[in-house]
Amino acid sequence: MAITVVGSVAFDSVETPAGSIDRCLAGAATYFSLAASYFTSVRVIAVVGEDFTAKEEAVFTEHGIDIRGIERAPGKSFFWRGSYLDNLNEAKTLQTDLNVFATFEPRIPEVYADSQFLFLANIDPVLQKRVRDSMPGVKLVGGDTMNYWINDHRDNLLKTLSGVDLLLINDTEAKLLAGTKNPIKAAQEVLRMGPKALVVKHGEYGATAFFGDEIFGIKNGQPTHPFRAPALPLTEVVDPTGAGDSFAGGFFGYIASQPELTPAVFKRAMFYGGVMGSFTVERFGTERLRQLTREEIDQRFEVFRQLTHLD
Amino acid sequence: MAITVVGSVAFDSVETPAGSIDRCLAGAATYFSLAASYFTSVRVIAVVGEDFTAKEEAVFTEHGIDIRGIERAPGKSFFWRGSYLDNLNEAKTLQTDLNVFATFEPRIPEVYADSQFLFLANIDPVLQKRVRDSMPGVKLVGGDTMNYWINDHRDNLLKTLSGVDLLLINDTEAKLLAGTKNPIKAAQEVLRMGPKALVVKHGEYGATAFFGDEIFGIKNGQPTHPFRAPALPLTEVVDPTGAGDSFAGGFFGYIASQPELTPAVFKRAMFYGGVMGSFTVERFGTERLRQLTREEIDQRFEVFRQLTHLD
Repeated sequence: MAITVVGSVAFDSVETPAGSIDRCLAGAATYFSLAASYFTSVRVIAVVGEDFTAKEEAVFTEHGIDIRGIERAPGKSFFWRGSYLDNLNEAKTLQTDLNVFATFEPRIPEVYADSQFLFLANIDPVLQKRVRDSMPGVKLVGGDTMNYWINDHRDNLLKTLSGVDLLLINDTEAKLLAGTKNPIKAAQEVLRMGPKALVVKHGEYGATAFFGDEIFGIKNGQPTHPFRAPALPLTEVVDPTGAGDSFAGGFFGYIASQPELTPAVFKRAMFYGGVMGSFTVERFGTERLRQLTREEIDQRFEVFRQLTHLD
Repeated sequence: MAITVVGSVAFDSVETPAGSIDRCLAGAATYFSLAASYFTSVRVIAVVGEDFTAKEEAVFTEHGIDIRGIERAPGKSFFWRGSYLDNLNEAKTLQTDLNVFATFEPRIPEVYADSQFLFLANIDPVLQKRVRDSMPGVKLVGGDTMNYWINDHRDNLLKTLSGVDLLLINDTEAKLLAGTKNPIKAAQEVLRMGPKALVVKHGEYGATAFFGDEIFGIKNGQPTHPFRAPALPLTEVVDPTGAGDSFAGGFFGYIASQPELTPAVFKRAMFYGGVMGSFTVERFGTERLRQLTREEIDQRFEVFRQLTHLD
């Protein structure tokens, strides 16, 4: 079933120990939708500038991604420049130009209205909430956020979180949002803010899901209930940008592709999230993510199983 | 089958956000042997001072641990004082008194000679090598080390590592020993130093095993071959001291208890390592580790399985 995703479609310039890339197609909604497109149909809501040409458009359309919700505005697309030279686990931001994103007013095409799944990628929580409220009929809402919104737009973020079923954030964000360092207490606190499940991403160590109110037939965060998926140990991480968004795309895409939301589906979705993240970081930008086959994805899923399973 | 372990038996004073404890029985060989004692018979080689009384002796003997290799020397036992107030993941050392350990000359009782398994807990690699060379008949040698030996006694350490089959160290130590930050490249480099398998401990994120020359029927570190075991997300970590040694004890103890060394045994051993570590940190010192039952251990093993397995 179709997912609508709202978030950034952008250009990035990135330097890492493996090299650099200039103005490659990027943005949370781009990574998310490419990753999810291997599992289900995806519809994007975003804004781009005049630098978004037929070439970039083709990256989406070749994967069957519906971009009728990508608005074209005068000016330039969102631009980010970052460096991983000091730390592969955390980018140093060198430049952020919001450009057309500064005045973005998301509009949902009528053809998107029957989407059963909605993902609110990392943007201003006011915009996330507006999109969420405009699609009251969706079955499941996923979301992401970042330190900037947690620190400086907390009230708006809390209003958004009350309408999110599944929140995907990283360790630092979870601890910051909850105001506590202990991972379980942080999860319990975040789950009190609205989400029924919280997926905390640990970078090279994978991700852990915690559960609050019943979702996927899983109920109440008792000690036995968290679920942990691995990440793949890699000989070389070329470019970590988009790993988290690709995780979210694989995770949410797999869920949306399944007829029923069961505990088994949720667990497999965690593995598919890790799988898609592991592909993304193998090349700069979206290069690896654009060239996959479902067969390669399922082969790597089996590697993740062998990496963690006793039998 | 019996394990002989050589390492420190000591007293610790520790402060953590949960409180503090003064002069509790501790040391790598203590944590290791208590954890391993739930799986197999254990024999300790260490040195203690006059402060090691019948009370401390009973902690070992009540678990059936053979302490005929614990030498009594005039003076005080090894003492360590540390604080986890700033960082639960890494102790700040406030005081280290080697005391009787400064002139320790390990002597192996004749009754230990038929041990099939040997574990070289974290001590001077010269002593580790001496013990290893004195027991040429053992079937499998495990070992641990730490930053101090890696930095300042590298040549001696390398001589010891050439006689170790299974090395258990943490992320920082592995990267330091290998001289590279990438976890797979670091593992490959360490495996070239002698060990046939390397278990890298990630604290709250569990541990990953990498394989070199054939061991347990597992061969050659190809991408599909690492194995990752989880750690248990805990609401409160009371005292992290001894978690790594307890991991080693559970891991090696389970291996020694099995009739054959198979890939399945190795994987289950990784889980038992995590299980024993998770118990240790629930209370100060060895308190929790002393009071376990095998039933509790196997119940928690099942929790670890649920935490990671898709089905």
